[in-house]
Amino acid sequence: MRKLPFSSDYMQGAHPAVLRRLAEENLTPCAGYGSDRFSEAAREKIRAACGAPEAEIFFLTGGTQTNATVIGCMLQPWQGVVAADSGHVAVHEAGAIESGGHKVLTLPSTDGKLSADTLEAFVKSFLGDENREHMVAPGMVYLSQPTELGTLYSLAELRDIRRICREYNLRLYVDGARLAYALACPANDVTLRDLAEDCDAFYIGGTKCGTLFGEAVVLPRKGAIPHFLTLIKQHGALLAKGFVAGLQFDALFTGGLYEQIGRNAVASADRIRTALDEKGYEQAFPSPTNQIFPLLKQEQYRRLSEKADLSFWERHADGRTVVRIATSWATTEEDVGALISIL
Amino acid sequence: MRKLPFSSDYMQGAHPAVLRRLAEENLTPCAGYGSDRFSEAAREKIRAACGAPEAEIFFLTGGTQTNATVIGCMLQPWQGVVAADSGHVAVHEAGAIESGGHKVLTLPSTDGKLSADTLEAFVKSFLGDENREHMVAPGMVYLSQPTELGTLYSLAELRDIRRICREYNLRLYVDGARLAYALACPANDVTLRDLAEDCDAFYIGGTKCGTLFGEAVVLPRKGAIPHFLTLIKQHGALLAKGFVAGLQFDALFTGGLYEQIGRNAVASADRIRTALDEKGYEQAFPSPTNQIFPLLKQEQYRRLSEKADLSFWERHADGRTVVRIATSWATTEEDVGALISIL
Amino acid sequence: MRKLPFSSDYMQGAHPAVLRRLAEENLTPCAGYGSDRFSEAAREKIRAACGAPEAEIFFLTGGTQTNATVIGCMLQPWQGVVAADSGHVAVHEAGAIESGGHKVLTLPSTDGKLSADTLEAFVKSFLGDENREHMVAPGMVYLSQPTELGTLYSLAELRDIRRICREYNLRLYVDGARLAYALACPANDVTLRDLAEDCDAFYIGGTKCGTLFGEAVVLPRKGAIPHFLTLIKQHGALLAKGFVAGLQFDALFTGGLYEQIGRNAVASADRIRTALDEKGYEQAFPSPTNQIFPLLKQEQYRRLSEKADLSFWERHADGRTVVRIATSWATTEEDVGALISIL
Amino acid sequence: MRKLPFSSDYMQGAHPAVLRRLAEENLTPCAGYGSDRFSEAAREKIRAACGAPEAEIFFLTGGTQTNATVIGCMLQPWQGVVAADSGHVAVHEAGAIESGGHKVLTLPSTDGKLSADTLEAFVKSFLGDENREHMVAPGMVYLSQPTELGTLYSLAELRDIRRICREYNLRLYVDGARLAYALACPANDVTLRDLAEDCDAFYIGGTKCGTLFGEAVVLPRKGAIPHFLTLIKQHGALLAKGFVAGLQFDALFTGGLYEQIGRNAVASADRIRTALDEKGYEQAFPSPTNQIFPLLKQEQYRRLSEKADLSFWERHADGRTVVRIATSWATTEEDVGALISIL
Repeated sequence: MRKLPFSSDYMQGAHPAVLRRLAEENLTPCAGYGSDRFSEAAREKIRAACGAPEAEIFFLTGGTQTNATVIGCMLQPWQGVVAADSGHVAVHEAGAIESGGHKVLTLPSTDGKLSADTLEAFVKSFLGDENREHMVAPGMVYLSQPTELGTLYSLAELRDIRRICREYNLRLYVDGARLAYALACPANDVTLRDLAEDCDAFYIGGTKCGTLFGEAVVLPRKGAIPHFLTLIKQHGALLAKGFVAGLQFDALFTGGLYEQIGRNAVASADRIRTALDEKGYEQAFPSPTNQIFPLLKQEQYRRLSEKADLSFWERHADGRTVVRIATSWATTEEDVGALISIL
Repeated sequence: MRKLPFSSDYMQGAHPAVLRRLAEENLTPCAGYGSDRFSEAAREKIRAACGAPEAEIFFLTGGTQTNATVIGCMLQPWQGVVAADSGHVAVHEAGAIESGGHKVLTLPSTDGKLSADTLEAFVKSFLGDENREHMVAPGMVYLSQPTELGTLYSLAELRDIRRICREYNLRLYVDGARLAYALACPANDVTLRDLAEDCDAFYIGGTKCGTLFGEAVVLPRKGAIPHFLTLIKQHGALLAKGFVAGLQFDALFTGGLYEQIGRNAVASADRIRTALDEKGYEQAFPSPTNQIFPLLKQEQYRRLSEKADLSFWERHADGRTVVRIATSWATTEEDVGALISIL
Repeated sequence: MRKLPFSSDYMQGAHPAVLRRLAEENLTPCAGYGSDRFSEAAREKIRAACGAPEAEIFFLTGGTQTNATVIGCMLQPWQGVVAADSGHVAVHEAGAIESGGHKVLTLPSTDGKLSADTLEAFVKSFLGDENREHMVAPGMVYLSQPTELGTLYSLAELRDIRRICREYNLRLYVDGARLAYALACPANDVTLRDLAEDCDAFYIGGTKCGTLFGEAVVLPRKGAIPHFLTLIKQHGALLAKGFVAGLQFDALFTGGLYEQIGRNAVASADRIRTALDEKGYEQAFPSPTNQIFPLLKQEQYRRLSEKADLSFWERHADGRTVVRIATSWATTEEDVGALISIL
Repeated sequence: MRKLPFSSDYMQGAHPAVLRRLAEENLTPCAGYGSDRFSEAAREKIRAACGAPEAEIFFLTGGTQTNATVIGCMLQPWQGVVAADSGHVAVHEAGAIESGGHKVLTLPSTDGKLSADTLEAFVKSFLGDENREHMVAPGMVYLSQPTELGTLYSLAELRDIRRICREYNLRLYVDGARLAYALACPANDVTLRDLAEDCDAFYIGGTKCGTLFGEAVVLPRKGAIPHFLTLIKQHGALLAKGFVAGLQFDALFTGGLYEQIGRNAVASADRIRTALDEKGYEQAFPSPTNQIFPLLKQEQYRRLSEKADLSFWERHADGRTVVRIATSWATTEEDVGALISIL
């Protein structure tokens, strides 16, 4: 029996329009390592979408690789990266940042979000510590939009964090693995242009938002990472067939596909959220994006799992289980309806 | 004007049969991180092709990533990897091995090949050195089949190297980025089964042999690298949509596609080699595989470059230029004919 | 004006008996890199003191170096080291552990101490996490005796932690930078023999306990770290004149000097503690060893600092300052009396 | 029976004048981590000797540590360090440079020396390589004065190398583990002032030139390595009792002691060299410093080894053994006479 596919947003291939582009150009000879014209076209479209005509853009393969490469290359050797204690780099990347030589400086967070106040207090405490020369200096702030818990930074919150970063000379980096699902969210007021203006680096996620694989790193200001192509190679992240990634992003940024992908997933998630509310389910985190985290009693979890693929998230203190329901560009109205009918 | 595409074997997408499989299963929900059934099917087919029913198989993205991950994980911290001075890991991976903490111990080579004698002399010299505790110990041997220069190890040569490896407790690892083009070569007598029997690890290249991307690491004996999945994640090499790689290898190992891909490329290269010989061109290295390295006078290089994409390889001592002509699964009879006609 | 020297336990050279040994053997030719007879004599005495006739013993230079070398060499690449959030490796080693590629997994602590319960809960939570293959595995526990805050693990507490370590296959490592001041403490019931029995590795601190520099790493069971000498060299921690470290430890472990050094410092600290109590000073942490952490009002801090060198430790929430008073083998009765008189 | 001590220059403690200073100040309280007044006094004296009033000076423990720390901190992540194939960092540091993430780019050398021509040809070849973005860029040149083989760079040779370095924006670093024995050599024309003018970093060796341990890193121009103190800590190379190193260098640079130490050793070596010549021994390398490398027949080697400690260096192609005879500040006229008498 086919189970309803809601366990994650990386269970299916590419958006059909993306796959079509790959097929169309499959036999077109391209230059290697991202120097091809499709990658360049994709870069131009992303620059336009970000209002960042000088931006440097690189296509990497996946999220952990992108985080490890960007963070490792932007930090100085005496610096670490500040992240929410629930941040992906802090918990779920198998120590990739540390493997590259840097400490992840974790701070308490609320619903997956770091606050400007917490950040500033931490930096001030570091600067005021007489032993700071024996300590790892904060050099960069890592956020994700949406966060691990599906929540969003508002533009005001992002600006507050940016202000602290500028005041204390910290780089600001945003992980956009699921960025399409933030951008398409009615509750969201942070645009690509805002990210380009506020961040030193961010990435536009492809893997979870319509491509077979691929993440587009945007460095809004030229020269932010010297010799980055060589360092991408050194990190094992340079694709010989860079055009395969470039073409996919070219498709995502043609005709508003990236936005459309986000809208479908968020609309699906909204229907499910409404149904959960109506049926009296509590949600563990106030996520307005494509991820939903209902709290299920043991019996509910068992029953739903028989018909739907859900992700175990964590055991709640009261014995209930937090599960994750994820929608994506590939989620169908039928499957949403079927899921709602069994809630 | 369209130039004849002979500069490399990674200029085009995927073999049509591979792309077709991706399209067929594009909307089929799959488990993440390589635990899906397509990846498992591909593994079974590779195990069968290698005669290695216990082999552990992992799908990574590209060659440098694969080399850095396998070598970094197989070496102990006091060990380095022995390679031909022309080896890819020694020269063209931007220091990826060293970035992972290990020295590449380079040895002189002939036509890209390391000899068992050179290897044994080096290991004996290390073991006889009274200062060896202050030196990097050889822990692994890196070969590639075919080599950087398109040449092949014979089975006898491979067995000689394996014998040294076993005698001195060195791991043996073969980089098969272009393995299809070795396997399909009439001059070749090293099979997948030989590699599985002789090596501690090797990889079957996809990127240059028919896939959009992807390399299949084969560890013939169970447990060769403990916790390898976690380490792949740590190296940024774990694909969320592992099934995209798995499906492609499933296609390559169905109906003899991998062999067929190799045969086409080698046949094309053989036609070109014959034409070069007939027209009096000298070849820099005796490659019988899909790469050809003619020596061109300045005038010849300029003239051919107007109509064909070739790769600059190196300047020869006598002033001529060594270029690389590469064929692939995508090379057409028409393009081969056109190239020959302008030689 | 000479200030009373209480800011730390590394302000003066070597115990006179140690310096005398260096002078006596200054012109005696010795083999290099720790293979000399003085180092071997020191090892034998340490083995005897630890009741560990098979122990491997290496002399390194300082604490951070020792921690980074031992931890980096004992962990597997997919593992991290568990430490109290106040642990030296977590806070005050400038990211040395991460620079070596490993995560420090910090846990909440009380008075600088990690509890067996906290440790077990953490390990169980890791093992129960369905995403654990994407996470850093706990591979080792780092404790210090005494802790950063001068407190002591009791033998029962150490045994409880050891039990967890054995149950979950974690290495146990104890940082003994100030071990003499634990061993000499009336409140202490953990002996060198206990450490040798319970730990996979620990070090006996010299720098803060009577030598010019030097820490003796004890690996109670043979072969715990293969090729450790080479790895020490690789970490830049192998002394050409290893005999200078060996001779000093030979002196420390001759005629009970190490114990005597500890007793003097603790007796001095006890006199000061009693005086603080009598004069109504509160102490921030219940340290029974050579470090004392009184809470001072601003006026008291200023006044005392005029005549005595104290260490700023941290600002307390109530506005008072926590300072550290440290005694050592070099602390004189006169200085203790003078300090008490100005409290 | 006491053997004549000629195997190395790190077999004995400290020059008596150095040890005397340690004893004199043994109980003087000092600030930690090199911020004490003795270290500062030593720095001032070294700045004066180098004619480099702005120089930043740090005291580390040993040679491998110093090389790994300075090179690791001066290189950018995409760069490697160029060294003679016989260089200490290339061969005898157990992979410390690679362990820090960087490649050692080895070049052929003559008598341990790298030539400006070889260097320039290599850099030009790199810059002319169309694949250079996939390669490790040369970022620094490592020399040692004297070299591993006891030979010297002339000022003209050093200037030629410096010129190449400046032209191609490479840092220049000189390992001065045995610098005293170069400076004191009649054949030498490179002064401390020359090194300060020509190098981006160099170190003045203590361990082999009169101290118990310690190397003084000189960065002639301010800010050459940002946050170097923190990075030294991170490398495990920051001494808590930095004053122990500082005091020893203070002694070395008082009253011309460093020069005197060099002169004694070179004079002893010259007597031995003359005797070797007179008795018909061949020398493998033309070393004019404190190391001598005679070629011994098997019988000679055996006979001499009975009465003198010599170092095995390597087996010569013709079956003879190259041994090393090293003198030092501690070499006595009597021992030199005794050695000569048995040649």
